[in-house]
Amino acid sequence: MLVASTFQKIFEGPELTLTHKAEEAFALAADWGTTSLRLWAFSHDGKTLAQRRSSEGLNALRREDFEPVLRSHIAHLQAEVSFPSPLPVVLCGMAGARQGWQEAPYLTVPAQLDGMIAQAVSLKLPGIDIRILPGLAQRNPEHPDVMRGEETQLLGLASKCSDFSGLVCMPGTHSKWVRLENGSVEEFTTSITGELFGLLSKQSILRHSIGEAAASAEPTPAFRQGVAEGLADPSQLLTRLFALRARDLLFASTGPEAADHLSGLLIGTEAAANLRGVPKVSEIAIIADTKFMQLYAFAIGEAGYPLAAHDADAAVQAGLFQAAHKFWPAAANIKAACR
Amino acid sequence: MLVASTFQKIFEGPELTLTHKAEEAFALAADWGTTSLRLWAFSHDGKTLAQRRSSEGLNALRREDFEPVLRSHIAHLQAEVSFPSPLPVVLCGMAGARQGWQEAPYLTVPAQLDGMIAQAVSLKLPGIDIRILPGLAQRNPEHPDVMRGEETQLLGLASKCSDFSGLVCMPGTHSKWVRLENGSVEEFTTSITGELFGLLSKQSILRHSIGEAAASAEPTPAFRQGVAEGLADPSQLLTRLFALRARDLLFASTGPEAADHLSGLLIGTEAAANLRGVPKVSEIAIIADTKFMQLYAFAIGEAGYPLAAHDADAAVQAGLFQAAHKFWPAAANIKAACR
Repeated sequence: MLVASTFQKIFEGPELTLTHKAEEAFALAADWGTTSLRLWAFSHDGKTLAQRRSSEGLNALRREDFEPVLRSHIAHLQAEVSFPSPLPVVLCGMAGARQGWQEAPYLTVPAQLDGMIAQAVSLKLPGIDIRILPGLAQRNPEHPDVMRGEETQLLGLASKCSDFSGLVCMPGTHSKWVRLENGSVEEFTTSITGELFGLLSKQSILRHSIGEAAASAEPTPAFRQGVAEGLADPSQLLTRLFALRARDLLFASTGPEAADHLSGLLIGTEAAANLRGVPKVSEIAIIADTKFMQLYAFAIGEAGYPLAAHDADAAVQAGLFQAAHKFWPAAANIKAACR
Repeated sequence: MLVASTFQKIFEGPELTLTHKAEEAFALAADWGTTSLRLWAFSHDGKTLAQRRSSEGLNALRREDFEPVLRSHIAHLQAEVSFPSPLPVVLCGMAGARQGWQEAPYLTVPAQLDGMIAQAVSLKLPGIDIRILPGLAQRNPEHPDVMRGEETQLLGLASKCSDFSGLVCMPGTHSKWVRLENGSVEEFTTSITGELFGLLSKQSILRHSIGEAAASAEPTPAFRQGVAEGLADPSQLLTRLFALRARDLLFASTGPEAADHLSGLLIGTEAAANLRGVPKVSEIAIIADTKFMQLYAFAIGEAGYPLAAHDADAAVQAGLFQAAHKFWPAAANIKAACR
């Protein structure tokens, strides 16, 4: 196999030892979604040696651009950490969707997260071994759902906290709430909260009251009020949205207040809907970037639950490293240190 | 007053009697909103002698166009029913908003609908007496709300069914649910259901599953399923939207099915949220156009309530006629026949 033999060359020199140098890159990994590409070079022991972030998401590219774009980013990484080309690459995210680069068919839940690794698909490019991780599908006709990308963060969480069982909240454009039991995804639900915030604030009647204001990343008083309303009665979301416009017309609320109130109302409603029936002693794991962490932590805390915060970026890297470690074990024979 | 004297001329000829000819136009009326203009010529006894419909809503016009556009439509009506120019005009809708033609400040609820007539504002154009009806404002800081246009339909309903007390459902881009007690608006709530349907079906991730499909005006099986979900648990709206996308990806649902399912989910959720706590013996009045009547009647019927259906177009005309009749009683001294 061309790719494997090329890869082996890295370790054929006189510096090859049974345990590789910890600071050597042994694999690359990328989360390639519709709006962004993030690429990392991992060391044998799971450290990130270099990274690239780009707005070259799949939606911004033609199919024929995928390969040159990836190669160009790899070349940039290589200039930074100087690895003999080419290293293998593990991908997650929309790259594996039907309309992505190459389809990695969904794993059906309930599913052990480990199963993702076995069900990855290979994409052979001259000189590079690429593996694409599958997403997850919930084939329940009453409650169908899919995810692509978040499952790799879950794999990272499970690698770090192998005994975690409970509800995981993953905020975003399409938030996922996932019930995880001993490394198995039992069920999950998507809420299009982030997308709805964007549509309502920029394109609905509410835009006249919100203007150019963006929602704060901190729980302001208006955000807290919205959270309180959403938590108190998630069934009234539809009847509460227009009040943000009326509050401006009748009480001259400001754009930032309206934006934060809307953000709080949506997040509070999402939390209440997803936490229904969950005992208040259960710790909720939140996997989020800094932008969402404070807001969701506030809402879930207000709902009365203990929390554990996990950085989304670290989680996806940990998941991708787990996968890389399984795909190419000869190259990473030091036990992975899960961050 | 120029306008009044010009108007009196109509009745100075030899045909003037104490009771005017029923088929003579005595006033014009218009519902002028952001996206459309509807104009009618009323007879003394409340018949509509002629009408015009135009997409020249206020949003499509510059301020300086308002007068020539109205005059041009009046001229067309005049060609049809041949009234001596000019007749007085009563307007309702966004024409009276701050950013409309001339502000007609809101009447604060609770408010007798009759009060709208006393609080109308005059707009004097050379040769035309124009009155603009106010909207309603609910100045409750916890639940602020406003309406412009629907209050005139309520005035029409009250003129027709003076003893109606109960909940009125007025579906639309921004649906209103109004508690009416003996001709007084006690409170109301706006749900941006129609606008949300448009945003979700055309601009969200769901557009990939809905495509060009429009929602049916009849309760299809997919609509009924959505209504059942919304009625059963209005708190889960946020968690149910993405299922429409997943159902397409996993079970190949069609665009029309997804559109109807979304329509039913939103309308069922709106109905459940607004009907909470309303005793099932209460008759719900629906004021709607034919497009919405069947869908809302189905949802409200499914929720277990008796219904009374009122055509929205007839209701706004009846309300405008009531107002015209009060503004210009000398010209309409035959008792109004409320339809």
